[in-house]
Amino acid sequence: MQDPLYFEDLAVGQCFASDTHNVDTDQIKAFAAEFDPQPFHLDEEAAARSFFGGLAASGWHVAALTMRLLVTSTLPIAGGIIGAGGDLSWPRPTRPGDVLRVTAEVLEIRPSRSKPDRGIVTVQVATLNQDGDVLQALTARLLVFRRPDTAGPGA
Amino acid sequence: MQDPLYFEDLAVGQCFASDTHNVDTDQIKAFAAEFDPQPFHLDEEAAARSFFGGLAASGWHVAALTMRLLVTSTLPIAGGIIGAGGDLSWPRPTRPGDVLRVTAEVLEIRPSRSKPDRGIVTVQVATLNQDGDVLQALTARLLVFRRPDTAGPGA
Repeated sequence: MQDPLYFEDLAVGQCFASDTHNVDTDQIKAFAAEFDPQPFHLDEEAAARSFFGGLAASGWHVAALTMRLLVTSTLPIAGGIIGAGGDLSWPRPTRPGDVLRVTAEVLEIRPSRSKPDRGIVTVQVATLNQDGDVLQALTARLLVFRRPDTAGPGA
Repeated sequence: MQDPLYFEDLAVGQCFASDTHNVDTDQIKAFAAEFDPQPFHLDEEAAARSFFGGLAASGWHVAALTMRLLVTSTLPIAGGIIGAGGDLSWPRPTRPGDVLRVTAEVLEIRPSRSKPDRGIVTVQVATLNQDGDVLQALTARLLVFRRPDTAGPGA
């Protein structure tokens, strides 16, 4: 990743892309056993008879893997990626064998009214598989700080 | 939990409450190491110097623990909890020692226009600690099926 980015380094339309992550059956079952113990995330046969028609990763697993890709290879925000919240959806299930990658585009940049050292940056984050299918769409509101030397009451 | 609930068993204003889950330092660091490797989730000293002022759980860890509580002790939806998406925010950090519990309230019930066997149920999910602080607010859109014997073209 490049040098850490501060609030003033970001611009609407800026795009970022991650490395890839290979999802496999063991990862899907391990996450589900700990956090989302439902048959369609844990057992191939039960999953085949379910709404998903086959083993599918928990949506929260996809969210967590997306965060890993954002942190390790996508968004070098100075001081870290601090999410205030966001909206997310899972248009398609994530399957064993899917190779995930993440793209992020800056949608909006809004300085804080009360705190001159920071702002909220809205980022559209898409999690895609090897076929370009969107597995997760996340609109995230991130807290991003200004460069320390440019912050101040008048900044 | 009670018997599985189908679409027609749900009503706006219905409330559900979970068991509790104790968060500790080891859980916070283990999740972060795998999915959100940032210093404020991994290291007490770095966290003390960060925006969080001390070790804090990844928001995605809180989301995953919330899902665990929903699945195991809150929402006995027939066929499982299948999320289409939602909006989430983290008003406060989750800390080691926090005892999480979840409340869920049915906000909206909408039959599918095209598929008579199902509908979308919007649920407001709050994740609280032992002091009643809201650590995560999630408005979730769930896919819920009707009882098989009542589904049909005219249902």
